[in-house]
Amino acid sequence: MKNAILLLSAFLICGAGWSQETKNKKSDIDAKVASLLSKMTLEEKVGQMTQITVTVFEDPAKPGYFDAAKLKQGIQDYHIGSILNVPNPGAPTTKRWQETMTAITNEANKTRLKIPVLYGIDAIHGASYTAGATLFPQQIGLAATFNTNLVKRGAEISAYETRASSIPWVFSPDLDFPRNPAWSRMWESFGEDAYLSAQMAVALVDGFERNDVGSKYSVASCMKHYIGYGSTTTGKDRTPSIIPERILRQYDLTIYEAAIKAGAKSVMVSSGEINGTPVHSSKHLLTDILKNELGFKGVVVTDWKDIIYLNTRHKVAETKRDAVRIAVMAGIDMSMVPEEFSFYTDLVDLVQKGEVPMSRIDDAVTRILRMKFELNLFENTVANLKDYPKFGSEEHILEAYKTAAESITLLKNKDAVLPLNKTDKILVTGATANSMKYLNGGWSYNWQGENSDVYAADKSTILEAFQNKLGKENVLYTPGADLEKEDDAEIAKAVELAKNASKIVLCLGEKNYTETPGDISDIYISKSQIKLALALSKLNKPIVLVLNEGRPRLISDFEDKMSAVVQCYLPGNEGGRALVDILYGDVNPSGRLPYNYPRYPNSLEKYNRKYTESISENEQNNDAKYEKSYLPQFEFGTGLSYTTFAYSNLKIDKTEISNTDEIQVSVDVTNSGKRAGKESVLLYLSDNFASITPEVKALKRFEKISLEPNETKTVKFTLNQKDLQFVNQDLKWIAEKGTFTIQISDLKKDFLLK
Amino acid sequence: MKNAILLLSAFLICGAGWSQETKNKKSDIDAKVASLLSKMTLEEKVGQMTQITVTVFEDPAKPGYFDAAKLKQGIQDYHIGSILNVPNPGAPTTKRWQETMTAITNEANKTRLKIPVLYGIDAIHGASYTAGATLFPQQIGLAATFNTNLVKRGAEISAYETRASSIPWVFSPDLDFPRNPAWSRMWESFGEDAYLSAQMAVALVDGFERNDVGSKYSVASCMKHYIGYGSTTTGKDRTPSIIPERILRQYDLTIYEAAIKAGAKSVMVSSGEINGTPVHSSKHLLTDILKNELGFKGVVVTDWKDIIYLNTRHKVAETKRDAVRIAVMAGIDMSMVPEEFSFYTDLVDLVQKGEVPMSRIDDAVTRILRMKFELNLFENTVANLKDYPKFGSEEHILEAYKTAAESITLLKNKDAVLPLNKTDKILVTGATANSMKYLNGGWSYNWQGENSDVYAADKSTILEAFQNKLGKENVLYTPGADLEKEDDAEIAKAVELAKNASKIVLCLGEKNYTETPGDISDIYISKSQIKLALALSKLNKPIVLVLNEGRPRLISDFEDKMSAVVQCYLPGNEGGRALVDILYGDVNPSGRLPYNYPRYPNSLEKYNRKYTESISENEQNNDAKYEKSYLPQFEFGTGLSYTTFAYSNLKIDKTEISNTDEIQVSVDVTNSGKRAGKESVLLYLSDNFASITPEVKALKRFEKISLEPNETKTVKFTLNQKDLQFVNQDLKWIAEKGTFTIQISDLKKDFLLK
Repeated sequence: MKNAILLLSAFLICGAGWSQETKNKKSDIDAKVASLLSKMTLEEKVGQMTQITVTVFEDPAKPGYFDAAKLKQGIQDYHIGSILNVPNPGAPTTKRWQETMTAITNEANKTRLKIPVLYGIDAIHGASYTAGATLFPQQIGLAATFNTNLVKRGAEISAYETRASSIPWVFSPDLDFPRNPAWSRMWESFGEDAYLSAQMAVALVDGFERNDVGSKYSVASCMKHYIGYGSTTTGKDRTPSIIPERILRQYDLTIYEAAIKAGAKSVMVSSGEINGTPVHSSKHLLTDILKNELGFKGVVVTDWKDIIYLNTRHKVAETKRDAVRIAVMAGIDMSMVPEEFSFYTDLVDLVQKGEVPMSRIDDAVTRILRMKFELNLFENTVANLKDYPKFGSEEHILEAYKTAAESITLLKNKDAVLPLNKTDKILVTGATANSMKYLNGGWSYNWQGENSDVYAADKSTILEAFQNKLGKENVLYTPGADLEKEDDAEIAKAVELAKNASKIVLCLGEKNYTETPGDISDIYISKSQIKLALALSKLNKPIVLVLNEGRPRLISDFEDKMSAVVQCYLPGNEGGRALVDILYGDVNPSGRLPYNYPRYPNSLEKYNRKYTESISENEQNNDAKYEKSYLPQFEFGTGLSYTTFAYSNLKIDKTEISNTDEIQVSVDVTNSGKRAGKESVLLYLSDNFASITPEVKALKRFEKISLEPNETKTVKFTLNQKDLQFVNQDLKWIAEKGTFTIQISDLKKDFLLK
Repeated sequence: MKNAILLLSAFLICGAGWSQETKNKKSDIDAKVASLLSKMTLEEKVGQMTQITVTVFEDPAKPGYFDAAKLKQGIQDYHIGSILNVPNPGAPTTKRWQETMTAITNEANKTRLKIPVLYGIDAIHGASYTAGATLFPQQIGLAATFNTNLVKRGAEISAYETRASSIPWVFSPDLDFPRNPAWSRMWESFGEDAYLSAQMAVALVDGFERNDVGSKYSVASCMKHYIGYGSTTTGKDRTPSIIPERILRQYDLTIYEAAIKAGAKSVMVSSGEINGTPVHSSKHLLTDILKNELGFKGVVVTDWKDIIYLNTRHKVAETKRDAVRIAVMAGIDMSMVPEEFSFYTDLVDLVQKGEVPMSRIDDAVTRILRMKFELNLFENTVANLKDYPKFGSEEHILEAYKTAAESITLLKNKDAVLPLNKTDKILVTGATANSMKYLNGGWSYNWQGENSDVYAADKSTILEAFQNKLGKENVLYTPGADLEKEDDAEIAKAVELAKNASKIVLCLGEKNYTETPGDISDIYISKSQIKLALALSKLNKPIVLVLNEGRPRLISDFEDKMSAVVQCYLPGNEGGRALVDILYGDVNPSGRLPYNYPRYPNSLEKYNRKYTESISENEQNNDAKYEKSYLPQFEFGTGLSYTTFAYSNLKIDKTEISNTDEIQVSVDVTNSGKRAGKESVLLYLSDNFASITPEVKALKRFEKISLEPNETKTVKFTLNQKDLQFVNQDLKWIAEKGTFTIQISDLKKDFLLK
């Protein structure tokens, strides 16, 4: 989806206000849907399945205003059921959103059946398309917190502020499961572990929908991008994925299962192909598995233009019309067409000629109407701004700050160079040191997020956060390098300035991006930045490397010369402040890396690799020196603190279990250092032998705790049979008899499944 | 398989000489096999399935000699059916091989049933484990010739020289289908195209077996490594592959189908796993598909220690004994155990306890005995050296030279810097310029090929070939760089020397390697070599880059600064000479690249990519500048000549066909330059729409022709229905109606399948 031009409605009418927060009963809704559906013409039904981008209705002569005739044509003639995207210049205020939605609502109210239009938006880290909204870390940072309560609370705030923008539907969470960390949307995912992703997905769905999606403080979530989207072979966006169904079920599908169980109302389909089949054309994936096997009752919406792309890009349909037939018969309920009405025209024709049965249309429209009723859209579509006093409030900002602070991950801290001392003379340098664009990344105010410095001008960049803490006159600064262009003069300037500093804070990373504009062909961090790092390292002064990046760009050319490494991902509007508070020890870091940070471009193994990817010394042939196969720069789960934690007393309640037993696990964690701190306790399980080659280990549980110095807490976990299972060759989840090993920190316990 | 210590037989007896070259009748052999099998004990049968490495029988006190008791124990007590590998120090003479084989034969003749021992060897580019043998280019170079006649002739010579070494069985051809060019055995494959690989596989099988495998000039071939071995995700050897069965059938399996049809007598199993299942444990792949569906009647042998590795590496078997059961029940006929007798002991026990049925044993032993009869081993196991006057002869060497010359591929020739003039003052430099190790690569004289400079001391390195052509005093030389270690002093020396040269020949590449010792984590060429190239390029003198490498190591950091680029792969013992003859224009180059040479490490697309991997400009979104997705350094099929070829008159005999028709295609090719030259004419086909996303194009035919200046030849191809087919979601080969496009050079013709 793309950014669009601001539309100031020509039909400015205030919303009708909200009814009481009441949960609709499922049976009532089913009856209402059936009744409404029975009154609808074919054209009205197909219109409901049609989603158009808001700029289509713009008056070219008056950018920012609807063309009344165009809006009327869309809503009255084509009966469209949904509109998406943001007016330009991006990020309207809540007031302007209110005006836009009022115009749409008024037009819908003139139709025969007065079915409300469902508006959807890419609000993926807060109400990120609304001016003044609270922007949280991007998803990869949420995963790094390992704190589902915090993540859920953030989603509640996002829902609140999105509904304050009169928008009831967010295209979030992202449930992608990236297999190549070079992927341009790596940062929109929860990283490389399926269990962590599933837990975080549930936290977001719970926070968005609040178990009462009809409330004026809730939004409907949209799981995306079903399925396999994040696993392209090359890491380039929208290129082919290769995922055998066994593997799809063992990992990718489990994340969707968890989110569906949590109640997610809709799903967006992957723009990619799996094993040669575009997902938008796969009845097996959309109908057989998603709708039938998983029992998903919500709306299946395409991604941008993806039915058309079945014809023009994927080339599985010889015509656009054929693409519509294939996609709808596969199980698509709503088409993000989104720039014209060919879907509507073609689908009406296909039904009339008997190529698509009415039953398929009725299924799709039932799902869409049900979602509209569940969202209470028949009663309320336009926000009463008085209901949202906390929009962009200090209370909300504090939550975004806390989330950023818990996400930032200390990867290395040689000789305790961190925390910094306020008496240190600091040089702040690097291409990402002084822009909100890099802190927020894409999907911020608009598609690529290039306007963050305008919309978040009152927020602190990393440099500004330093200046705020130390006084502007006490911070040395020069950019040092461009993100891409090599500039020896600027490097020389940074080196010169560094001579006056006792420590260097080197801020490196990536431009703002998403989707194809974020494609890379080389996962190394840019040469211009490598050059700066190497030049500064020659001064032999402590360098604190701050990474501000959507994916792990390789730093192996200079990592050994850095004293400290801090990963801040894309921490959002409060990220600069949170980072600097961590660097000075005002906050104790507690994030953990949600992926393996690779060392080399052709060695992208995940932490839960197979044994054959990390052959032990004694299994190597003796007659040759072997290169070590598995050596990430930083492993999944890495995350240091300014205090230390000691693990002891790992216990399990039985060493032999049957196929119905649970296992109780407990471990004592002690803060053995001198500062209070938070620790995410991770439980890994290894199946020592299995008919499918077992992973070396897999994350099964985690819990984040706070500990004062010398405090000990006992952390308890319960493992069940499902935790012991994997998907076998026959696509069944099974647990096989034999020994398993539980690992927490470096403690291990074995048990036997009999 | 590994190198081993030279064994000088204590039982030196000459071979009994060879019988007439006669083809055994299949029915005769079947009767002999059945009769022999009926006399065998369980222990004798299981012994036949046991393959041991030759060094197990060595006397530690007398390296190079058999320990008579050990050999007796292996052959008489354990009844072993097969021995493999090479005695140390590698590469015995034919005489020494004769002595070794005589000792083995004498021992076998003392057994009850006198079943001969089958000896197998990694002779993969000529009789590469025999001193004085003719060494050809490695397989990747064979593919680059696009000349199946030449490749077949080379295999005939390899067979001749291997049988001259008393060895009847070669572990060749390699049918691996690499999906990641970083793979350490890329060079053992035929590159990235399945059709090219299949044609080359057939040429090798035909050349090895000569349609009369019992002849004293033939050897049994062994297809390897069935299946999916070459497609590991990371490119590291023996790590997991992910290949859905649909894709396995569409590409990998077609190569095996072709080689089986050509009569290949045996197959070696992949050490890897596919989708979590080790191939050695897969009944589906070994029995259902290979033996039953493809009707393969030959011997299925494991790779090195791979049954044991089911337990210790893959961890699909809890014990070694269980690993034996799983592998044999999956369809393994012979276990390359190879360092002890646990397979024998365990399998006898498994059969006695009813865990493996005798029928499975009988199937395996029948296959092994059949191969022994087909090879005439019951009559002849030891070569009569008088039968092999051409071993290592000039006639054979000339064939190896011609093959190297047709493989070497001119990738770039700016301003016609090549051919060189003898009056040019040349600096030869680079780490690969002066060693036979790099020209031959692994599996040369021993496993890793580190002794090529000793065994091929009389052959010319690249530098020596220059010196031979120009006179030693007329060639400047310094190594310039180590392959790995950076050495600024040596670079400075090269730069200084280059000032006296008019042109620089820069020889870069890789060490000799195979298997895990060849694993890399970064596909860029080594930093020490990049540094040398950049330093020399500052002189602004023409640089001819000679690549001597097993896989495409990235050169994008300096390729734009090179005037010419010549890929010589691993061209074997005659490669240095062939290269220099090409550089001086005594030979006109005619090789074509059998893979895409990548530009960046995270952009490893193949030439037959999907459309979504190379989105056209008009399908990109307008509101963002897109990075070009598909931009290899050199594309599959690239290969320049010193003359030029013009294509015209592309014709097809029909523009509409039915599902039984063939299509006749013809094209005129004219030598439009001033020198005679060879041209490989490549025919590509595109299926414009299909239910599985179609490839952009796929190679369907090729033919290499010779043309004098101004000569024109009409090249004709016939396409059939199979060429239009792909494997659909139901795993069936089908052709779908619609338009197809034939492309030869830049000429195109469409036709319609009705």
